[in-house]
Amino acid sequence: MESAIPSHLQTARSRHRRVPDDYAPPYPSFVARHKPAVKRVIMAYFGVQVRGAATPAVAAALAEIAARFAADNGPTHWDRAEYVDQAGFTNVVSVAYWDDAARFDAWFSSAREGWTGGQGSGVGRFIEVLRPHVERYETLFSSPDRAEGVAVLADAMSGEVQEHAYWGGMRDRIPLSQTDAMAPGGEPRAIREGGRIRIVAHDNLCLIRSGQDWSDTEASERRMYLDDVEPVLREGMDFLRDDGLAVGCYANRYMRVVDATGKPNEKSYGQSWWKSLAALERWAESHPTHVKIFGAAMKYLSTLGPSAKLRLYHEVTVAAADEQFFEYRDCHPKTGMLAGVSL
Amino acid sequence: MESAIPSHLQTARSRHRRVPDDYAPPYPSFVARHKPAVKRVIMAYFGVQVRGAATPAVAAALAEIAARFAADNGPTHWDRAEYVDQAGFTNVVSVAYWDDAARFDAWFSSAREGWTGGQGSGVGRFIEVLRPHVERYETLFSSPDRAEGVAVLADAMSGEVQEHAYWGGMRDRIPLSQTDAMAPGGEPRAIREGGRIRIVAHDNLCLIRSGQDWSDTEASERRMYLDDVEPVLREGMDFLRDDGLAVGCYANRYMRVVDATGKPNEKSYGQSWWKSLAALERWAESHPTHVKIFGAAMKYLSTLGPSAKLRLYHEVTVAAADEQFFEYRDCHPKTGMLAGVSL
Repeated sequence: MESAIPSHLQTARSRHRRVPDDYAPPYPSFVARHKPAVKRVIMAYFGVQVRGAATPAVAAALAEIAARFAADNGPTHWDRAEYVDQAGFTNVVSVAYWDDAARFDAWFSSAREGWTGGQGSGVGRFIEVLRPHVERYETLFSSPDRAEGVAVLADAMSGEVQEHAYWGGMRDRIPLSQTDAMAPGGEPRAIREGGRIRIVAHDNLCLIRSGQDWSDTEASERRMYLDDVEPVLREGMDFLRDDGLAVGCYANRYMRVVDATGKPNEKSYGQSWWKSLAALERWAESHPTHVKIFGAAMKYLSTLGPSAKLRLYHEVTVAAADEQFFEYRDCHPKTGMLAGVSL
Repeated sequence: MESAIPSHLQTARSRHRRVPDDYAPPYPSFVARHKPAVKRVIMAYFGVQVRGAATPAVAAALAEIAARFAADNGPTHWDRAEYVDQAGFTNVVSVAYWDDAARFDAWFSSAREGWTGGQGSGVGRFIEVLRPHVERYETLFSSPDRAEGVAVLADAMSGEVQEHAYWGGMRDRIPLSQTDAMAPGGEPRAIREGGRIRIVAHDNLCLIRSGQDWSDTEASERRMYLDDVEPVLREGMDFLRDDGLAVGCYANRYMRVVDATGKPNEKSYGQSWWKSLAALERWAESHPTHVKIFGAAMKYLSTLGPSAKLRLYHEVTVAAADEQFFEYRDCHPKTGMLAGVSL
């Protein structure tokens, strides 16, 4: 059993973990381990948005961003997912990951100009980027043998970690929680620059990408996921999308992962922007749909453990004010962080 | 909104609360407030135990302890409850409360001799006493207008308190949590003294009395409690009684409150002894039956608020090693803290 916080990020604490040192989780979980030389990771969401079904302009935009990803200083890993949002718009989001800020910076400015600087491409476009110091994010995986998201960049998976399967584990896995409450500061505001709207959010904004992969499940396990778990998950995702603002969730996307040709994989993830880690904690602990999901996962993983074929993972970041970038062009006003401001 | 920790017990923190300062609970709850002059409270459980149904010897024992309670330096408040335990024994427990240690001490030694010092009364008898400093215990009430247990001794109920309706609220309400993790120290051991067995437990042993009162409920609310809530509660109580030791619960009694004539009231409480507050927290947060109860209570009280007729309360103590007394005579070996030692 090891700590989720890697040894090179362990520091003298001014804040305690929520569990005692002899706490033993009821089932195994794992975290991504970067090389100690990695100081920052970059998570960059490039979205394209169109009313109704995808159009040729969407396909062109997707080809364009894929070509940029393949160019010099492009991301180490990226994937793509899509969903139809509450306003009936199709959104296709290509998410790219770097672990070298210099490479990202060298790549980003022309990519940004290409994505949101143009005129009248016939589709909405957005860019949402966090570039957290490694102290400011954590991951969690139910199995150690298939990385997703930012964890694909990691050097390895950990052994079994201690800080999980209790309320508060998410916070306890973030290295900064050793010394900082990560309280939010300020309100998001919009800056218009021609046809672009940039959102300047606030210190300690929180992002979660929380995914499930049922591609390896068979017969009864698959049925259990699709019939019992997924509808409850969807209900929670819909609540956050439609009524999240009152509980501190600026925006939520419940996305289906697609392959390079646009065909859906048997993977999905929820991606949401939060006022604070505390707001995410309160929702997770008290909203009936999430409590039900947590209870089901506890029971399921306690029983099946590593032999479960359903794979669950997440990545959670609490970003400093200067580690964020949000920019929207021709998007409807409930898109991403636009929903957090009055336009 | 006020803190559950009264101002005269607030101190410079070395440990943080689990919620931010702007946390707002979704429904109101209240705590008992003692006069600042009260330094300690005493909670003394006097049990009588017999195989099968109660006998005249039980009635005699109950009359005897009631007479002692009524004598000089007796408790300010007491009540009585009973249940049939896992070994098929009827247990009737008279619980008495003081808020003046000198009065309790003046009263206790002859009461103890009378209760466990005798010979062959034909019934098992036990005494379980905590005498915590007020820093070491907390209460919680869903309504401010009917005190139960130790709270009957309080000067008043608080206004709405902040630290509740989230996992960790129980700990955050205990004043000592401001500076102390309240980790348990050591293992319980038995000391035989003639026919008596005394249990010396360990530092930071934890006691919870958690009650419900459905006497004011009507029609649909009553049906909801009895049909939907009570069976789930009972399942959780049975788990702790039968399998609690593995999760740190030494003993659990799910008791029905009775009046002076032995007639059941429409009140019950669970009373359990725990290795640590942390063990109680883990069970409460992860055991399906309790998670279900918590979820139901959250939903119920968020909807009905103070107009709910079902009343819920609890008192939780984390006792120092020198604040405990356990003594058993002619009881079966799964009685109370006897279950925590090898005899």
